[in-house]
Order: sequence, then structure tokens, then C-alpha cells
Amino acid sequence: MGVVGLGLMGGSLAASLRQAWPQARILGVSRRAETLEWAVGRGWIDDGGMSLPEVLAGVQLAVLATPVRTIIEQVKEADGLLPPGAVLTDVGSTKLEVVAAMSRTGRPDQCVGGHPMCGRESRGLEAAEPDLYRGATWVLCPSRATAPGTVQVVSSLARAVGARPLILDAAEHDAIVARTSHLPYLAASALARAVAEAVPEGDLRALSAGGYRDTTRLAASDVSMMLDILLTNRAHVLAGLQALQQQLSKIEQALASGDEPGLAVLLEGARQSRRVP
Amino acid sequence: MGVVGLGLMGGSLAASLRQAWPQARILGVSRRAETLEWAVGRGWIDDGGMSLPEVLAGVQLAVLATPVRTIIEQVKEADGLLPPGAVLTDVGSTKLEVVAAMSRTGRPDQCVGGHPMCGRESRGLEAAEPDLYRGATWVLCPSRATAPGTVQVVSSLARAVGARPLILDAAEHDAIVARTSHLPYLAASALARAVAEAVPEGDLRALSAGGYRDTTRLAASDVSMMLDILLTNRAHVLAGLQALQQQLSKIEQALASGDEPGLAVLLEGARQSRRVP
Repeated sequence: MGVVGLGLMGGSLAASLRQAWPQARILGVSRRAETLEWAVGRGWIDDGGMSLPEVLAGVQLAVLATPVRTIIEQVKEADGLLPPGAVLTDVGSTKLEVVAAMSRTGRPDQCVGGHPMCGRESRGLEAAEPDLYRGATWVLCPSRATAPGTVQVVSSLARAVGARPLILDAAEHDAIVARTSHLPYLAASALARAVAEAVPEGDLRALSAGGYRDTTRLAASDVSMMLDILLTNRAHVLAGLQALQQQLSKIEQALASGDEPGLAVLLEGARQSRRVP
Repeated sequence: MGVVGLGLMGGSLAASLRQAWPQARILGVSRRAETLEWAVGRGWIDDGGMSLPEVLAGVQLAVLATPVRTIIEQVKEADGLLPPGAVLTDVGSTKLEVVAAMSRTGRPDQCVGGHPMCGRESRGLEAAEPDLYRGATWVLCPSRATAPGTVQVVSSLARAVGARPLILDAAEHDAIVARTSHLPYLAASALARAVAEAVPEGDLRALSAGGYRDTTRLAASDVSMMLDILLTNRAHVLAGLQALQQQLSKIEQALASGDEPGLAVLLEGARQSRRVP
């Protein structure tokens, strides 16, 4: 199989598959020769190349693990390179545009979108680790054309690395993660800016505690990766931003008018609505 | 000394002081007899009572560790109960109204406001632990009338439990924590509501990861405690809410217009402005 992109997601996938399927031949694609050498040196991949044509002709399963807009380009490119019968999937964080690109290939039955719900702010192969996928939900988004056997192949891959496959419509996936993932990132970023504009750095270090640290944690995410995500899920993210601003306005109005019972209802509702896995 | 309120903060303080000052006589005040029994049973307090008059006449240092608006009432009550020369402080999360109440007592020189920057969502004596204060900044807010010796007494208390005393003007304190603490709470609460209104509970459990969990963590805080905090720091919190909404509007406008460079600048600024202790 081939893993295109050896960052946090792709590198961790190769590392984990190496443990799960010791006999499998795993090939990697990276723009950087050092990354390939490092992954070969750790035994995570058997061999690799710096472009798709060098690698994809010989694989039966290709996983695109690059930023979302790169994935969309690579879906087209991979279409002409993969051997007959090979399955193509990805691990991008938004799915509607990726699955649409898959539907436009000459092999839509052999394509299925994927999104393992794991990750962290740190990126790159240095942050990769074989246990990244363990216990995570791995969303699979077939198009109407996707063959059942294609879904089975990628489900097996997900289970091999300890994840739980969950089949979901791409549009539904994007609407949900706009709220559960992309909106928290933007809330954290806006909060970090609203704090920094009013609090000097020294005071911030001395006078912030775990609450600030956790609530702004996502603001440390890689910006170029997040731009790909936001710009391929724009309508849902914008709806989320408006909903967040409405909730903040409600809280502001209750506080400004001294409406303590109303404020209590809003905050108690928030407390009870929070659901953690 | 006397600790008024044996919740997370007061209970942890008694527990920690017991270790630091084994010879000190520590008295507690709680509305609930079981709480007093439990604290005596663990050796955290020597004795206690269910009201201030039962306890304060015999102490040289009283620490009010109740919700902020209760503290403001108890500052008045304690004034008539403490023996001459006794020092009065508190551990409330907002300081301007507390310090103003202290200034209005008959012993303003023997009063100093305090705010140890620690805590967690869980509350009550069950959550208390001797190490809660270790490494935390303990803000001290003297009024103009506070005697230097009073600040020294409470600084010693802070250091005894492993905290770092930091002297700060009460108004400045309240302006800073409005951004670093109260605004993150409201952002987390508004976010939890904006997610819950669009994502069914089952999907939320399956399709949220660490980002949602951390960004909404503060929404699980105790609402009645937070109402006390918000309503005694209203102007600064409202300014923070407006700043947060402005930042969200900027992000929304850049995303809506497809201004990728502009969006990148906003998000990169957020990433770089984040400062964690």
C-alpha cells in the first residue's frame, strides 16, 4: 500500500500498519528526501518516492494524507496512476469536496473518503506515533458510486490501527465537524486575540491558569492546515460562527441588563449540553 | 487561624496549612455539620462551627473562602467579630468589590484581598487536596489603607502552601482576569451551546475529539460560583465579550469573502499571541 504524505497522520498510519501488518509492503510519498529516509530508517515504510508516479503504480491501496486542498488535486492525479482494482482513500478533515473529486474520477467505485478523528497541534513526522489512531472514530464517506468492497477494504485498514469505522454522508460529516472541530478552533483563536489585545505578555504568563491554556489550546494549530479545512467547509463554518456569536450576544445581553436568572439559564444550559466522549 | 468556607479552596488551604504549619490551630466554618466533621476527621481542621461568631473571636488570621458575593457580606460581619490586630483576607476570584468592602470596615489596615490563581471545575471538600496551591500565583490586592504588616502575614500564608504572592491593584487584577479567566469561561459556554444546538448528542460523542473537550472544558464550571464572579466584574467582562465578538466578526468576514491572506494573518496572529505559563 502507499501512504501519500508522511506528516503526523500519514507517518502514524505507516508506523501503526507496520505493527499490525508486518508482512505488508508499505510505500511512502514525501516531498522531502530526508523524510523518506527517516521513515525507511525507522522501518515505517519499505521504500518511497517524492512524487505520486514513482509510487502509486505498484499499490493496491493508496491513502492520501496531505492537506485537504492537496488531497483534492491528488485524487485527480492518482486516478491515472493506480493499477486496475486499487482502492483510493484519504484522511482529510473535510469530506464533501474530496468525495466530489473522487466521484469525478474514472474509478468512483474504488474511492471512499475517510476522516480519522484524531490529531493534535504538533505536526510532522517527528510527532507521528503508532498509537495515534487507537480508539479514534474513523469516519468513512462513500459516494453513491462507491462499491461495498471498497468500504470494506478501508474499514479493515481502520480496524487494523485500532480505530472504529463509522459510515457517514460527506455533507453530514462536514456539518458536524464544522461545529465540533472547526468552530472550537476559531473560538480559541478569537479568544487568544481578545486576551492578547488587552493583557501584556508578562501579566498573561503570571495571571492565567489552566482555563486559559485549555480554552485557547487549539489556537496553536497549524494555520496552513486549518486554512485548507476552513476554506473547504466554508458554509458550515460560517453558520457555526453566526451561531456562536448569537450565543455570545445572548450572554452579553443577560449580563449587561443584570438578568441573573436569565444568565443562569444560559450557563446551566451550556454546562448540561456539554458531552464528552 | 480560621478558614470560612470548606469547599475546594478553603478545604485545600486547611489541608495544606496542616502540613506546612503542624502546630497551628486551624478552625473552620461551614454551613454543614457533616463538612466540619469530615474536615476534623481528616485532621485538616482542629475544630469548627457553622457560623462566623462561633469561630472568629479566637483567630488572628481569617480567610474567607466562600463565593464572592458571600465574601462581601462576610467582610462586614467579620469586622465586628475578629479580635484586635487580627488580619482578614479572602480567596475570591474578583477583587474590586471585595477590597472596597474591606476599606469600609473599621479595620481597613488589617484587611487585604487575595486571589490564588488555581482551582478546577470540580468543587466541594471532596475535591480538595493539599497540593492545590503549589506553584500558583497568589494575587494580593491591598487597599490604600492596608498596613504593610498585613500584606506580610498573608504573603507568608501564600508561601507556606507553595504559592507565589504577587501584589496587584484590585482594578488591574479584575481587568486582567476578565480576559484570562472569565472570558474563556463564557467563550467555552457559548461554544458548548452553539455545538449542542446543531449536533445531536450521539453524534457529539462519536464525532468530537480532544479539541472540543478542551475548548469547552470551562463550561462545566459551577454556575452559581461563576454568576458571583461575572456579576462582581461586569464592566470588564462585558468589554471582553465585545472584544471577542469583534475578533469573531473579523474572522467571519475574512472567511465569508474568501480573503485567504487576511484570514491567515488573523489566525497566525492568534497562534503567536497565545502565551502559556
